Amino acid sequence: MARVAFLGMGVMGGPMARHLKAAGHDVTVYNRTRAKAEAWVAANGGAFAETPSEAAKGAEVVLTCVGNDDDLRAVTLGPDGAFSTMAPGSLYIDHTTVSAAIARELAEAGAARGIGVLDAPVSGGQAGAENGRLTVMVGGDAESFAHGEPVMQAYAQRIGLMGPAGAGQLTKMVNQVCIAGVLQGLAEAMNFAMEAGLDANAVVDVISKGAAQSWQMENRAPTMIKGEYDFGFAVDWMRKDLSLVLGEARSIGLSMPLTALVDQFYADVQNMGGGRQDTSSLLRRFRG
Amino acid sequence: MARVAFLGMGVMGGPMARHLKAAGHDVTVYNRTRAKAEAWVAANGGAFAETPSEAAKGAEVVLTCVGNDDDLRAVTLGPDGAFSTMAPGSLYIDHTTVSAAIARELAEAGAARGIGVLDAPVSGGQAGAENGRLTVMVGGDAESFAHGEPVMQAYAQRIGLMGPAGAGQLTKMVNQVCIAGVLQGLAEAMNFAMEAGLDANAVVDVISKGAAQSWQMENRAPTMIKGEYDFGFAVDWMRKDLSLVLGEARSIGLSMPLTALVDQFYADVQNMGGGRQDTSSLLRRFRG
Repeated sequence: MARVAFLGMGVMGGPMARHLKAAGHDVTVYNRTRAKAEAWVAANGGAFAETPSEAAKGAEVVLTCVGNDDDLRAVTLGPDGAFSTMAPGSLYIDHTTVSAAIARELAEAGAARGIGVLDAPVSGGQAGAENGRLTVMVGGDAESFAHGEPVMQAYAQRIGLMGPAGAGQLTKMVNQVCIAGVLQGLAEAMNFAMEAGLDANAVVDVISKGAAQSWQMENRAPTMIKGEYDFGFAVDWMRKDLSLVLGEARSIGLSMPLTALVDQFYADVQNMGGGRQDTSSLLRRFRG
Repeated sequence: MARVAFLGMGVMGGPMARHLKAAGHDVTVYNRTRAKAEAWVAANGGAFAETPSEAAKGAEVVLTCVGNDDDLRAVTLGPDGAFSTMAPGSLYIDHTTVSAAIARELAEAGAARGIGVLDAPVSGGQAGAENGRLTVMVGGDAESFAHGEPVMQAYAQRIGLMGPAGAGQLTKMVNQVCIAGVLQGLAEAMNFAMEAGLDANAVVDVISKGAAQSWQMENRAPTMIKGEYDFGFAVDWMRKDLSLVLGEARSIGLSMPLTALVDQFYADVQNMGGGRQDTSSLLRRFRG
């Protein structure tokens, strides 16, 4: 077992750090809002640090799960950032969903210091973090992956090395594009079913064994039909992710018309006050 | 076992009639292109009819699986149409994907003659017809459904009564809208994965167990990546179905932006010469 530091005690980082502690690691935590880290230590034991650099000092593995590119740069390369105290031979794993560009920037900064770096965004949501069944999409070199994989197994059911630095982030983007298409189709389909006078639950039941089937249909259509949108992954976060996708697509010159359109539809949902509702709330654009 | 007539010996109707014959029914077939019906009789036995009215004469159940609204009107209400000879107390089942309006028109015409009518479009494609595992989405009254269900069991694994006349067609439309969203998302996602330098098969492998999962991802993403588009349900047919959806949406006043957009994208695929390729060929818009 290793001495590890976990930076970011949000709805994802908190339970992930808890699984690391339960697996026997010596865990030090940091959070920008200090009270959350203190509450985590009160509940789980482990150590509390005032700054990322203090948390990272002497750690064999440093992990982050923060908000966005700027947050991530601050806790790694900023003043009092973790990279200032990490030792050569140590490993840095980022679980935040951020741009491929910052993933590559951190990989270069790590390489210059002898630190292994993995970009490792996750899917599976808060529930996956809580029950330790996340999917982790990893970018980095094979040596760093071999170092990090047994650590991540504390909270993951599936860990894939997808390619060099940035490949984890790019894979997560692919995931979000698929979800965007599925959900807008499902929203139009459910609205059509209800407005056409069908029993939408009966429709889902009969079509969900064939070519229209999706995880979202099986898990979210029944709640969409009830108008319930409190199942975890929020519209605000989805818009952040789609912004990353569209930025990457712009930089490599790709047309992504559905992705761009659904991103705008999520803006409509935000303007309806639904930014904290889950991603299936696209149906609200049609039904209020 | 019943005396049944099956009108339309296409890639769906042919195997469906074969299952009816195998189940012990006394089957008479008709096809607009006479040679197909003759070939069916040569291969399967049963009887051949020169016209729909001749096929339907004395039949307890008449089934159709033809091309579109106009074809369907011709074989039912047209000169020499099946309705001209069907007896009171007999049952008419239409397996064509057509408008809800014609389904209701046929139900009314049947009621005036004492004929039970079911609109019963199917999903599962040619493979589902061949192996007798179609899903059938039925509109009509309970009495007609009870009459028709044991007949349809010859080629269906799932038969749902969705509501009154037209409800089967409306349910099929919901199915196609879901597929349109899934496939365009998947096309953009796979193009992004390949252009971003990822191993697209590895990406599908890692994301296909989570919230992005779909039947299309599991069954069509691997073939899309190979550029293979010969798996059954053709773009030309999908455009027909989406035209039905958008017509129905127009008549009841619904906004369906993704459905309308994907319909236009399928027009692009048709213009690239892909009308006979399967629906996953949306990826060709990006990759040629």
